[in-house]
Amino acid sequence: MTNKRLEKDIEFIVELDKMKSILRQTSLIDKSKRENDAEHSWHISVMAMLLSEYADDDIDTFKVIKMLLIHDLVEIYAGDTFCYDVEANKDKKERELKAADKIFGILDKDKGEELRKLWDEFEEGRTKEALFAASMDRLQPFLNNYYSGGGTWRKFNVSKKAIYKRIAPLKESSKELWKFTENMIEDAFDKGYIEKE
Amino acid sequence: MTNKRLEKDIEFIVELDKMKSILRQTSLIDKSKRENDAEHSWHISVMAMLLSEYADDDIDTFKVIKMLLIHDLVEIYAGDTFCYDVEANKDKKERELKAADKIFGILDKDKGEELRKLWDEFEEGRTKEALFAASMDRLQPFLNNYYSGGGTWRKFNVSKKAIYKRIAPLKESSKELWKFTENMIEDAFDKGYIEKE
Repeated sequence: MTNKRLEKDIEFIVELDKMKSILRQTSLIDKSKRENDAEHSWHISVMAMLLSEYADDDIDTFKVIKMLLIHDLVEIYAGDTFCYDVEANKDKKERELKAADKIFGILDKDKGEELRKLWDEFEEGRTKEALFAASMDRLQPFLNNYYSGGGTWRKFNVSKKAIYKRIAPLKESSKELWKFTENMIEDAFDKGYIEKE
Repeated sequence: MTNKRLEKDIEFIVELDKMKSILRQTSLIDKSKRENDAEHSWHISVMAMLLSEYADDDIDTFKVIKMLLIHDLVEIYAGDTFCYDVEANKDKKERELKAADKIFGILDKDKGEELRKLWDEFEEGRTKEALFAASMDRLQPFLNNYYSGGGTWRKFNVSKKAIYKRIAPLKESSKELWKFTENMIEDAFDKGYIEKE
């Protein structure tokens, strides 16, 4: 007798291995290579563990971490879309919705729906957990850019205005983290890590 | 005014980036490269989310995931020790204890101690959460070996007996997962993925 439910779980887990090959634009701080989706998802999940105490509201940290662990799974089929690439972002939503049906559809219905609900909540970005999760998702590449002396900001001539827009979820979820990040942007600007327009 | 506590958190988060460069012996299923500690830690954390329903006892899944997210941080200083390398395992404990003092010591005392407690619990492997966490830690490379047609079992002539010993925590934490894994070992043996002694 085989356990069909568990077989689907294993099929899903095997599929997840592909996350280790999906490259993001962000590099490691030591600039040795570009990071991938699995590494990024791990980094921001630990960050949520550490930084949830700075959230303005009481948040369900476990829910935040579950969101972060699975937030990029759609990229297994939709690929990584660079946040500052205007053209590629035009059909991003459509590609990712299709990918979500496919990846979460591997699992038994109830299980797939549970993960899909978490992903939808993250994507909609309205709940306090979704906002805090988005903050971690934005802060990590921000730190990697800052500590590698500019990273993708420099490589793609990203403006200070665009960076402020990108990290906006931080402002909505943590005064403390926002203040800290704002100081770092100004410092990065002074140091020439960000292009003067 | 600066927030010293948050500064230490950020220092810790920056240090974590090194996990993305610590190679393990296990390869990706597509054999394109060896996986690293960050990728592995992410994979097993998602696995815990998916597979905790098969635990024999009621477990605190959030605690399991927190353990898994941080269980390999000591390798930033102690390096990855291959589980089947008898010689390297002799001073592993000593190297890792030193590394634990160093990595968790970056954080404010209460915070460092909280993570250290989780790591100690994982290392001792006695609680039901630690056992389930160890099961995920063992099952993931097991799956990667199986689905890549032998992986490190083949590369290092690992015996069936040694594999059974390695995945023993599964037997103690989930009858369902144990049955499934046992079938896979026998199948891998029949398929020649595991050396006949």
